[in-house]
Amino acid sequence: MRPAELKSLLEAKRALIDRKLAEILPESREPGSRVIAAMRYSLFAGGKRLRPILCLLGAEVCGARGEDFLLFACGLECLHTYSLIHDDLPAMDDDDLRRGKPTCHRAFDEATAILAGDGLQALAFELFSHPDLLQSTSPERLLRALHLVARAAGIHGMVVGQMADLLAEDRPISREELAYIHRHKTAALISASVVSGGLLGGGEEEALYALKRYGEALGLAFQIVDDILDITGDEKELGKPVGSDERRKKATYPALVGLDQARLMAQNLVEEALEALSSFGEEAQPLRALARYILSRKN
Amino acid sequence: MRPAELKSLLEAKRALIDRKLAEILPESREPGSRVIAAMRYSLFAGGKRLRPILCLLGAEVCGARGEDFLLFACGLECLHTYSLIHDDLPAMDDDDLRRGKPTCHRAFDEATAILAGDGLQALAFELFSHPDLLQSTSPERLLRALHLVARAAGIHGMVVGQMADLLAEDRPISREELAYIHRHKTAALISASVVSGGLLGGGEEEALYALKRYGEALGLAFQIVDDILDITGDEKELGKPVGSDERRKKATYPALVGLDQARLMAQNLVEEALEALSSFGEEAQPLRALARYILSRKN
Repeated sequence: MRPAELKSLLEAKRALIDRKLAEILPESREPGSRVIAAMRYSLFAGGKRLRPILCLLGAEVCGARGEDFLLFACGLECLHTYSLIHDDLPAMDDDDLRRGKPTCHRAFDEATAILAGDGLQALAFELFSHPDLLQSTSPERLLRALHLVARAAGIHGMVVGQMADLLAEDRPISREELAYIHRHKTAALISASVVSGGLLGGGEEEALYALKRYGEALGLAFQIVDDILDITGDEKELGKPVGSDERRKKATYPALVGLDQARLMAQNLVEEALEALSSFGEEAQPLRALARYILSRKN
Repeated sequence: MRPAELKSLLEAKRALIDRKLAEILPESREPGSRVIAAMRYSLFAGGKRLRPILCLLGAEVCGARGEDFLLFACGLECLHTYSLIHDDLPAMDDDDLRRGKPTCHRAFDEATAILAGDGLQALAFELFSHPDLLQSTSPERLLRALHLVARAAGIHGMVVGQMADLLAEDRPISREELAYIHRHKTAALISASVVSGGLLGGGEEEALYALKRYGEALGLAFQIVDDILDITGDEKELGKPVGSDERRKKATYPALVGLDQARLMAQNLVEEALEALSSFGEEAQPLRALARYILSRKN
């Protein structure tokens, strides 16, 4: 698949996801609707929709129609957005900008941002368990996909990864510890996104295992490229100031092993991701192209 | 059911729930385990376990064994505990004490408390979707129960209620607005707890509707008694200073209509809860006794 083809495929999926998200979370005038405005603000701040796209592609590589699982995919974006809102809070990373716009607690206030994150996590699980999904998958598979994502979001993944990341600031850490952080904080949910799609789409155990390996390698590569862009990236393209990891003395691979070694690691991980897909044929071309694209992305 | 019988029934259920929670969330020595310590700290700070008990009783009134749904019930306590941790944060209610002990952000720190809440919400949904539950209920019913609880936790319930509550501080509000806050912030999850038990336990639609009405009335009564205790209660029994609502100019029924009227409202709501159970027989005695007990509780 040529880069231009991938680009239009990603744009089409992204448009589908954005339209569905807007339908799911319309503006509200209820007494507590300030929190809904804050959820919408962060959800529609221009995300790449990587996780929902992976979910749709995971279903498609197993022979299903990705669009049938849009509700589930949108839930993944809600989970991801909640984690960004909370990570940006003053008590956490204390960031003022995200995707070129004020972070949620800057645009609203801290209490609203905390609640917006909480509300997005609850909304994610409301979507994952939406009865309409049962038109296209079995309740057993839906429960398994939901369980997998819940584990990746909590103390087996994202939450414990963010805690370990915060605890690692301002002190030297080992490559093993850094790998633990990335695997939990970033790769777990990325991997769960593509595997959940495979589960919903009726994938066999062997295919699911391949998607898991693909997702884990892709997730680690994605995080390393993120850290490289924090050093070499363009502030305008990134929508945030570069060099923030260094200022905050965050442990990253570029800081630990240097830029060249970090680039090489990302390349090797993308190779690993492609290798994991070797049992698939043509149908896995979008997933393969996406893995290659990770290396060249600018934001 | 005599008060002494109810007391020993509640104690037995509470012991079951506490034992299961300890099994679900053991101590950990992983890199990010500080967040697990904080989750455990708040989860084992002496909660009444009202929501999980209601879930077990909801299943039992529909003829099932409550114990079969302990994993689900424990998830409800995780959800409730997460909401307490986040409500206590400096940006929200800024409370130092909860159940006679320092609040989570006081015992740990703000970032850890935010993550502990996030982790408890994810853990809740991990438990709600636990494969072991399918030994005792159908996947369709489990999904329906989970969906119901997700809605009650998010922008159709707790989160929007807490937002409305924060926005109502320091200004006069109407009885309608106060009813909206209580219904969303407290009653939605209490009602979902008992209905989810009924769903898991195989209850028919008519029984589920009765449990919903029971739970909503009980939840509102519970909140009004809470607000009354904040004025008339004993600090030692409550484990927190009294008068905090007044100091914070929180809107409550005692503040809005006076103590006597508020007591009368709570009584009427308990009558309404009992009335909702009229189609049940002997099997609903624990739920009836629990509703009466709400009125006389001291903490």
